[in-house]
Amino acid sequence: MSENTSYWLWYPGDFELYHALKQNFSRVERGCPWPAFWKSEGFRNRVVFRRCYDLPEETTFFVTGVAGSVGYVQLDEEKHPFDTLIFCTPGKHRISIHIGCIGCVPSVFVSGDVICSDEGWMVEDYSQPPVPSAYNRYFTDPSRDPSEWPYSEKVYEPVSVEEVNQGVLYTFETELTAALEVTGPESPLVFLGESRAEALDTKNCYYSCRPDENTRRCPRQAVRYVFIPDVQAGDYSVRAIHQFTDIPQRASFTCDDDELNQIFQVAAHTFSLCSGCFFLDGIKRDKWIWGGDAYQSFYVNRYLTADAEIEKRTLLALRGNDPVTTHVNTILDYSLLWILSLSVFYESYGDDTFLSGIYPKARSLMELCLSQREENGFIIGRKQDWVFIDWADFDRDGPLCAEQMLFAACSRVMASIAPESEKQTWAALYAELTEKINRFFWDEEKHAYIDSFRSGKRHVTRHANIFAIVFDLAEESRKQLLAKTVLFNETIPAINTPYFRFFELEALCRLGYLKEVLQEIKSYWGGMLRLGAVTFWEEYDPSKPLEQQYEMYSDPFGKSLCHAWAASPVYLLARYFVGLHALTPGGTEFEVEPQIQFFRELDCTFPMGQKQVHITLYNGQVSVETSPYII
Amino acid sequence: MSENTSYWLWYPGDFELYHALKQNFSRVERGCPWPAFWKSEGFRNRVVFRRCYDLPEETTFFVTGVAGSVGYVQLDEEKHPFDTLIFCTPGKHRISIHIGCIGCVPSVFVSGDVICSDEGWMVEDYSQPPVPSAYNRYFTDPSRDPSEWPYSEKVYEPVSVEEVNQGVLYTFETELTAALEVTGPESPLVFLGESRAEALDTKNCYYSCRPDENTRRCPRQAVRYVFIPDVQAGDYSVRAIHQFTDIPQRASFTCDDDELNQIFQVAAHTFSLCSGCFFLDGIKRDKWIWGGDAYQSFYVNRYLTADAEIEKRTLLALRGNDPVTTHVNTILDYSLLWILSLSVFYESYGDDTFLSGIYPKARSLMELCLSQREENGFIIGRKQDWVFIDWADFDRDGPLCAEQMLFAACSRVMASIAPESEKQTWAALYAELTEKINRFFWDEEKHAYIDSFRSGKRHVTRHANIFAIVFDLAEESRKQLLAKTVLFNETIPAINTPYFRFFELEALCRLGYLKEVLQEIKSYWGGMLRLGAVTFWEEYDPSKPLEQQYEMYSDPFGKSLCHAWAASPVYLLARYFVGLHALTPGGTEFEVEPQIQFFRELDCTFPMGQKQVHITLYNGQVSVETSPYII
Repeated sequence: MSENTSYWLWYPGDFELYHALKQNFSRVERGCPWPAFWKSEGFRNRVVFRRCYDLPEETTFFVTGVAGSVGYVQLDEEKHPFDTLIFCTPGKHRISIHIGCIGCVPSVFVSGDVICSDEGWMVEDYSQPPVPSAYNRYFTDPSRDPSEWPYSEKVYEPVSVEEVNQGVLYTFETELTAALEVTGPESPLVFLGESRAEALDTKNCYYSCRPDENTRRCPRQAVRYVFIPDVQAGDYSVRAIHQFTDIPQRASFTCDDDELNQIFQVAAHTFSLCSGCFFLDGIKRDKWIWGGDAYQSFYVNRYLTADAEIEKRTLLALRGNDPVTTHVNTILDYSLLWILSLSVFYESYGDDTFLSGIYPKARSLMELCLSQREENGFIIGRKQDWVFIDWADFDRDGPLCAEQMLFAACSRVMASIAPESEKQTWAALYAELTEKINRFFWDEEKHAYIDSFRSGKRHVTRHANIFAIVFDLAEESRKQLLAKTVLFNETIPAINTPYFRFFELEALCRLGYLKEVLQEIKSYWGGMLRLGAVTFWEEYDPSKPLEQQYEMYSDPFGKSLCHAWAASPVYLLARYFVGLHALTPGGTEFEVEPQIQFFRELDCTFPMGQKQVHITLYNGQVSVETSPYII
Repeated sequence: MSENTSYWLWYPGDFELYHALKQNFSRVERGCPWPAFWKSEGFRNRVVFRRCYDLPEETTFFVTGVAGSVGYVQLDEEKHPFDTLIFCTPGKHRISIHIGCIGCVPSVFVSGDVICSDEGWMVEDYSQPPVPSAYNRYFTDPSRDPSEWPYSEKVYEPVSVEEVNQGVLYTFETELTAALEVTGPESPLVFLGESRAEALDTKNCYYSCRPDENTRRCPRQAVRYVFIPDVQAGDYSVRAIHQFTDIPQRASFTCDDDELNQIFQVAAHTFSLCSGCFFLDGIKRDKWIWGGDAYQSFYVNRYLTADAEIEKRTLLALRGNDPVTTHVNTILDYSLLWILSLSVFYESYGDDTFLSGIYPKARSLMELCLSQREENGFIIGRKQDWVFIDWADFDRDGPLCAEQMLFAACSRVMASIAPESEKQTWAALYAELTEKINRFFWDEEKHAYIDSFRSGKRHVTRHANIFAIVFDLAEESRKQLLAKTVLFNETIPAINTPYFRFFELEALCRLGYLKEVLQEIKSYWGGMLRLGAVTFWEEYDPSKPLEQQYEMYSDPFGKSLCHAWAASPVYLLARYFVGLHALTPGGTEFEVEPQIQFFRELDCTFPMGQKQVHITLYNGQVSVETSPYII
């Protein structure tokens, strides 16, 4: 019996919703588990898989259900239990596999020479029409069902063991997401830190635990430093079982500026740590799947791993089921960024199958947005919605301009991804919104988009103006004007989150201010390196010394020191400095415009769809080679 | 610390949805678990309970989460883990309890003198506005969380042990829902039967199992007869641990006709066996919660236990969450019967709180129905809907009359239970539907409602005509006419399911044909007794001998021998023969019209809201006494 081509099967999206629940419920803060504070979308509990076969000869098959499930196999009119060998005569047969499961995604594995769980099974949920079953490449072993995400493991020994503060501090070469193994006479209380300061602060450190008495292991947790108080160096040995999702990095960046090289490597490393079953914001905190953070991860991932699977999982995890009642993470703009993410995903992979499968969820989410328009047709939040955009001091009286910019950009994306019959509706919405945005929010005196037209305050922040540039919602001349009136206007409060700095740097790149962006990369990210960072941080204030960098959200160690959105140099360097970008979805055609004015030498490789693109600059000569990507 | 008044708390409906999943996934047929084939509504996975206190003095409290949950307690700005004693100073405090749980309904128990999980906690699901937390009287012990329904147990020894067919047959006095305990040298394969014939038929019996080697117990299952092949009488001892929901019967019925007395008792016993966490159809099969079966159970339960709690649980389990996409059990008419059930429930208990809490779900279900109207305004099924009404040969071309009758009745119920501002809309729909039904479906020549107006066949079945009577959708004179043209018209095919026989007998009673109904009760239900029934069956064909009674759905033992819908004599005798009925919701005022022409003596007790009504007839003298019901 060959099982080479069989996968565990489930209803599309259910796997992601189940693992998203586990992921979003995995945060622990000082002994308090902290499940994410938004509507949690459950998976289906009862589905049926169906398929017809016309067999040339007799065969057998065997069906396994996920642990905790109940169900049966129906072969024509006959019922069979799971886990029994089923004989099938030659000829036409209809097979259905009925399964119910409460605690986990209902999924099945069919083993057999001919009848097996490969492509071709349809699945129903007794509510919607049948759809093709879903599966993924990690689940091809009938004995390992989809209830546990299969992490790869790598063992790390500490690079230093140091007696300090009447205890012992163990340091690893980098931050890890690891199950600590603590061997010694007892199960001591161990204190974990992303920083040395955190591990040594036994009162304020974010996470501490006692290893399990049998396995000697602590739960999987972000860690670089481990402190055990009241012991001596020889008492305990500590090692870290790093548990990670093995998504190969397909990119490298080397130039004549070592600082930039290091920035790229640390950004790539940071991003890999934050890429598990899904794109996470950070590995210590929040360990949640946020739509806004994910949006930026799609850009970085395109140039680093080009792994479409993690992107699909993240898109499905964020959006939940129809009918939709709440916004992604409860945040109105994250719903809009989710729709924009579809477009980023499609540009990267040109995957029409996934796009057409998920389009109905984009449409229903847009319909929810459309139901939230005020009298002028602008989107506003409902009582239960969070209108975020950024941590900034907006004039929030009435519709917020930045939100409308996203809404307009979404309508353009919808026009591009919708079936032919629906394109015109979305295009008309796009035209309407762009016209209205310019009519209501553009201030001819300030030469800028204002936050709100209702208050009369004509308050300008950078955000809407940045969106106008990056989402192409203003004419070229106006965009260039905005550089002066807003981006380089020091009277307008600076962007103070790395989250929105991504959009700002993107806008500067778009307008050609590459020198300024490179300076910023070297000063901001380089600044973290100079403070000893081995992963990039959620936030960094260049004006503060190291010991004041760890505080955030009024928590002395609240700041995440390994945060996905800090990985944007990977994208910025690849896209704007090496200048590689696709001309067609999936990168079948692409362009390289290396900005050789910034480099003497370059030796870089980046993924472009199924290919690897190798770009070098030596002695003023640029060379570009492509080769197929072989896993 | 007093915990007397604390309950486990959850989001309203989640408990019922979780246990409905367990219930509807519990059926096993010949080794094949058979989860119910409709959309399974999941419970919420992430909720937050909130409450404010103003404390006169300091106090402590302690929060427990359901097994497998994660979460924390927030007291003002401070976070605390579950399972820790939390101190609270005098003054005003805000407490929130955050909890996530994947495998089970997220629920919490708060122990404390002052701060405890009694009435007054609100709960949110990050989608809807806050609602009062739900709880029930079975869950007041912090060490027994709501993941398991707490069955009461009673041990039964067999009433006979008999060597037969080279094995031993153990017989219990009645059918039970029991975990069998089989003590002896090994764990033999045991065969269970509702009938002697089933247990002895080791090939075709519905359920067989081996007792667990450690506990010696089989899973809870319907059983009256147990057969162990290839053993002798002394080898094994078998007893049955009956596991049941202890809902006290508040009714008794004794008259001078012993057969009627026995019919009442067996009907009451049958009904009790089918009343667990929810109203079930049957205890061997399907063990599912069906909206049509439940509708009839609401009538029986009113006169037998008057336990509002099982009715509320059943209503919540059937309806699921909003937004609604599918019909109750996928059946269009079961959705309509669910709405009608609300009215039956309200008549029984006058519970305004529950009614107003569930009204939004009635409205959204009606809105789904309204979205399914064809051009004349009649309701029709969508592709995924099952338009059932009954197993009968309807003319199903176009809208079905019986379905419109239910739809009209629902609009009247909606008008009666809606808030003042919405009543007029529903009343207008009722007027429109009744007018159209009479215009499109009444046939002036046949003096009957026809199935379909579209086919031109003018086909008459009993069903729509019966609904016209029981739901008061025709004038009195027309109803009386229907008795002759339909009910007593032998050219119209007889009702052949006990499910619809309930409606037919109700119609006959309404029209005053009590003698005929009494005759039918004695011949149909009496017929089962004469064949030795100790519980009433899903179906009974008086023309067949006992050995041919067990077959149904092409399965030799497919028929359920303990079926809730067979318990209707409890209702019919109480409502129409003893003549007890409420005049106001909840029975604060009621009437007794005993039909003394059928009895020489009567001694009956029935519940009427919070009271017990004791009715006697001796020597032509009727006496009616009421007393408070004391649990």
